[in-house]
Amino acid sequence: MVIGILGGGQLARLMALRAHDIGLKVSILSLNKDDPGAQVTQLWVQGDPNSVDDVSNFYKEVDVLTFESEFTSSQVLTYLKKSKRVFPSPSLMLKLRDRSSQKKLLLDHDIPTSPFSSLPNDEYLDLKTLSIPKVMKSVVDGYDGKGTFILTKNNIQHGRNFLKNSPGVIIEDFIPFKRELAVSISRSRDGSVAVFPLVETKQIDNRCLWVKGPVLHPNYPAFLKKIERFISSINYIGIMAFELFDTKDQLIVNEVAPRVHNSAHYSTNALIEDQFMSHIKAVTGQPLRRPQSQSQGFAMFNLIGSSKKKPTWKLDSDIFLHWYGKNKNRPGRKMGHINALGPNPEQALIKLKKAIKEFNL
Amino acid sequence: MVIGILGGGQLARLMALRAHDIGLKVSILSLNKDDPGAQVTQLWVQGDPNSVDDVSNFYKEVDVLTFESEFTSSQVLTYLKKSKRVFPSPSLMLKLRDRSSQKKLLLDHDIPTSPFSSLPNDEYLDLKTLSIPKVMKSVVDGYDGKGTFILTKNNIQHGRNFLKNSPGVIIEDFIPFKRELAVSISRSRDGSVAVFPLVETKQIDNRCLWVKGPVLHPNYPAFLKKIERFISSINYIGIMAFELFDTKDQLIVNEVAPRVHNSAHYSTNALIEDQFMSHIKAVTGQPLRRPQSQSQGFAMFNLIGSSKKKPTWKLDSDIFLHWYGKNKNRPGRKMGHINALGPNPEQALIKLKKAIKEFNL
Repeated sequence: MVIGILGGGQLARLMALRAHDIGLKVSILSLNKDDPGAQVTQLWVQGDPNSVDDVSNFYKEVDVLTFESEFTSSQVLTYLKKSKRVFPSPSLMLKLRDRSSQKKLLLDHDIPTSPFSSLPNDEYLDLKTLSIPKVMKSVVDGYDGKGTFILTKNNIQHGRNFLKNSPGVIIEDFIPFKRELAVSISRSRDGSVAVFPLVETKQIDNRCLWVKGPVLHPNYPAFLKKIERFISSINYIGIMAFELFDTKDQLIVNEVAPRVHNSAHYSTNALIEDQFMSHIKAVTGQPLRRPQSQSQGFAMFNLIGSSKKKPTWKLDSDIFLHWYGKNKNRPGRKMGHINALGPNPEQALIKLKKAIKEFNL
Repeated sequence: MVIGILGGGQLARLMALRAHDIGLKVSILSLNKDDPGAQVTQLWVQGDPNSVDDVSNFYKEVDVLTFESEFTSSQVLTYLKKSKRVFPSPSLMLKLRDRSSQKKLLLDHDIPTSPFSSLPNDEYLDLKTLSIPKVMKSVVDGYDGKGTFILTKNNIQHGRNFLKNSPGVIIEDFIPFKRELAVSISRSRDGSVAVFPLVETKQIDNRCLWVKGPVLHPNYPAFLKKIERFISSINYIGIMAFELFDTKDQLIVNEVAPRVHNSAHYSTNALIEDQFMSHIKAVTGQPLRRPQSQSQGFAMFNLIGSSKKKPTWKLDSDIFLHWYGKNKNRPGRKMGHINALGPNPEQALIKLKKAIKEFNL
């Protein structure tokens, strides 16, 4: 069986490695031969994952197709709509890629998320009619802080520019939160479901810096029931990541990503089946394992470029390195991540904070 | 960094997957484009790992070279002898590939192994001068029972043919044993050493069927000290597998393999760092982890072809599948393996014996 992946970044690479574990052939459609995903398989196809022509040719050569990113073009997703071999389903991907329809879908299924409204990009932002602060998010293509703008009374002109240059935005109430959490959940074509541990995520400038877990929260059991019901009732296939705000009272979904996600990268070393394997099994219809934790605590730290120099490091035997094989370093680029286990989440994170000092990125 | 692997079978494949985890580029030299190892990397080179010409070209393109098999031709190993970027060292590989010099090396370092003598292939086998039973083993190319012959008074003529058709044999005393055990040990260029758990291996027709562990043996601590001293004193780099006979009194080395080995395939799911990662780190000079066990018991069962039909199976969520992506099934061919964890070795093996019934091989 050949599994096709649209996109060739690190998420494609990490999925490809797990697919190879279980003997699947992996075909990757991406622009450049030195893309992280392209390096780890024989079946690489040069092309644009957002081009209908390239995807239609690619699709003929694979048995099952999946995505590295929710921001696959709506043209491609619309083209794939009739297909039965694409997971998650293109119709769901179309709803989930757009923050406005994503939030409607969540609210329709009783998943708590912040109040919002949609703004077309020719709307005039008027402080008189807005209760600020507000969060403006581009309806598509927003990740790692790109496409998010926090509107205050001091930056209204920047906000107007942000809106004008966006394909449309949603505008949300600003949710004061204690911390950010995340959870991933996977559902296979055979109906089996795997729930990953609840984790805390640390964001700096809207980019994930580290993750630690597992985390306990009094409202989590009830919340988990809701999201389990949600993915079953929309017949979602694959893994989905929920980014959450932990307010003092409740868990509120910030956004969801219909794919493997940075917040679950810890799983490769902390669980007996990681998010990448879980997604691959889900989309190929194999039974999922309950992602049992191997230790009392775990953590993940992103390795983010800070220069254009070739990174160097001294590796500690007590951490797990994952390096994406990117040929060029640059400031802000995710080059890899490190995982650690420990007797509790804090101890695992301390190991990583110590180890990170040995990396010259 | 590019790591080159001579050979493209399942062992190369499994090493390549781990090398990709840590961002290494992997180049594989093998005969066929659909070899298991060739499928999982961009850098595949068509060629014969036993040809000096092919290896010399391949070697120029890699930073570090390692082996899938100890039976790399002596011409290639001799050619590589001056190289500083080949691990384990070609001179050690030359000694270890030949059962006669391997056994001498073991005895020189006080490692217990069965008494033996070498026979050239024009020697005449005479029952009058032999105390039978004896075990005859081809000096090279013996694995999975190929190249091994147990000589009794009833098969002397077959034994003479075996000898005549061999490149030379060693003839060993037959060791009556209670069970067969195995242990792998890895040593990195940075000096760190990782000892894998002692396991029991079940051989049918001299081929490994299953492995379970960890196993306790009163003489193991002393034996372990000897083999740790052994690999340090010969400055061995990489992983080495020791196949052992557990007699009622002692542990005796049957043979060693200077490479990743079927008896440690359990490690991918049972340990926090598997034998493939350990070997890759060893030959690239990275610190090895102590292969801590994730559970009280583990087991591995080989998936061996029994027909030429396409294999099918129903996967149980409680086992871990490793499938090698071989394009053709055939009787006796290793197509994959399954691992399981359990509260003890026996329970883990029981899971696999149950699961194996769902495979039509």
